Amino acid sequence: MPKLIDHEKRREQIAEATWRIILERGMEGATVRNIAKEAGLSLGALRHYFATQDELLIYAMTLVKERATARIAKIASQEPFTPKEQIIRLLLELVPTNQEKMAEAEVWFAFTAYFRHKQGVFDAMHDGIYAGLQKVMNYAEQVGLLPKKMDKELETEKLYAIVDGLALHALLDPKRLDGKQMERILVQHLTELFERGS
Amino acid sequence: MPKLIDHEKRREQIAEATWRIILERGMEGATVRNIAKEAGLSLGALRHYFATQDELLIYAMTLVKERATARIAKIASQEPFTPKEQIIRLLLELVPTNQEKMAEAEVWFAFTAYFRHKQGVFDAMHDGIYAGLQKVMNYAEQVGLLPKKMDKELETEKLYAIVDGLALHALLDPKRLDGKQMERILVQHLTELFERGS
Repeated sequence: MPKLIDHEKRREQIAEATWRIILERGMEGATVRNIAKEAGLSLGALRHYFATQDELLIYAMTLVKERATARIAKIASQEPFTPKEQIIRLLLELVPTNQEKMAEAEVWFAFTAYFRHKQGVFDAMHDGIYAGLQKVMNYAEQVGLLPKKMDKELETEKLYAIVDGLALHALLDPKRLDGKQMERILVQHLTELFERGS
Repeated sequence: MPKLIDHEKRREQIAEATWRIILERGMEGATVRNIAKEAGLSLGALRHYFATQDELLIYAMTLVKERATARIAKIASQEPFTPKEQIIRLLLELVPTNQEKMAEAEVWFAFTAYFRHKQGVFDAMHDGIYAGLQKVMNYAEQVGLLPKKMDKELETEKLYAIVDGLALHALLDPKRLDGKQMERILVQHLTELFERGS
């Protein structure tokens, strides 16, 4: 009996090979030829799974987003934390505090720059983080953590800037800005925001 | 008498043509052929000013940085403001509140992604903004604006994240985040930081 090959599993393996290539050589290196080699496939076999380079790149980026979303959903469903602890843990999932998230940030950065001038191909501008932070702020408000006199929209936008600014800087200069320092900044920011009302 | 062509002036014109190409088509469009056409030069004439594509791209990026630095130095030398007003004006120079700065941010983003995997070619990671913000924070401390009990390093890193996070988001989603909103966030952030001590 022939070995059954899981189509979706193979597509994920190809996406992972794409990430590795981007991490090593950037978007310029992410040609179908290089990706096929990295994935241990012939060009023809690769084309069986992805008809075009853009189709493959979009799938690879979507998979980054799905994995991050899954991690965050898992944390959001965990109960044994205080609301403040849970919010901090969620925010820490959005910044590159380990190798896996550093790779995600690298891929996000490369893809966003690459797809920026290809309109309609991939909406890298709306990666769901802003919408996620709006939910986090609404949750903080519901559990009474936010000060009463507060511009929630402004604070959400500011928190979003801090999260993505930290992610960008950790990516560009990981020696200066490490996971511990990002955690300290996020904890200090939330502590101050939550205490402002009391 | 032959017309004297200012070599440096021509190089600047080529750099500006490069920016326009990047704004329209991204880094993939920034080939020497396209840039020569945009600048109204033959390929041979372009090569007279820049031997390689990377040499041209590095010059174009350096010019972005120089122009921004010049604008900031001008503001720093202006006297008729309170220290707080001056700091806010400086920070506003770092975020894309108008078309010129939006173009700079776009070029910065494209170049950083492009040069990221070309080690030693161009140090896009250290664009001078962090060092500039350290100076701003030292100045704020000297004129007595900062609270006494404060982690200056943490606050500098946080301010840096806010500035670059806002710049990135204004670039990716200018409809949601405009100049007025960025100004409100920066003013609110500084006001809160400066009032924390009093």
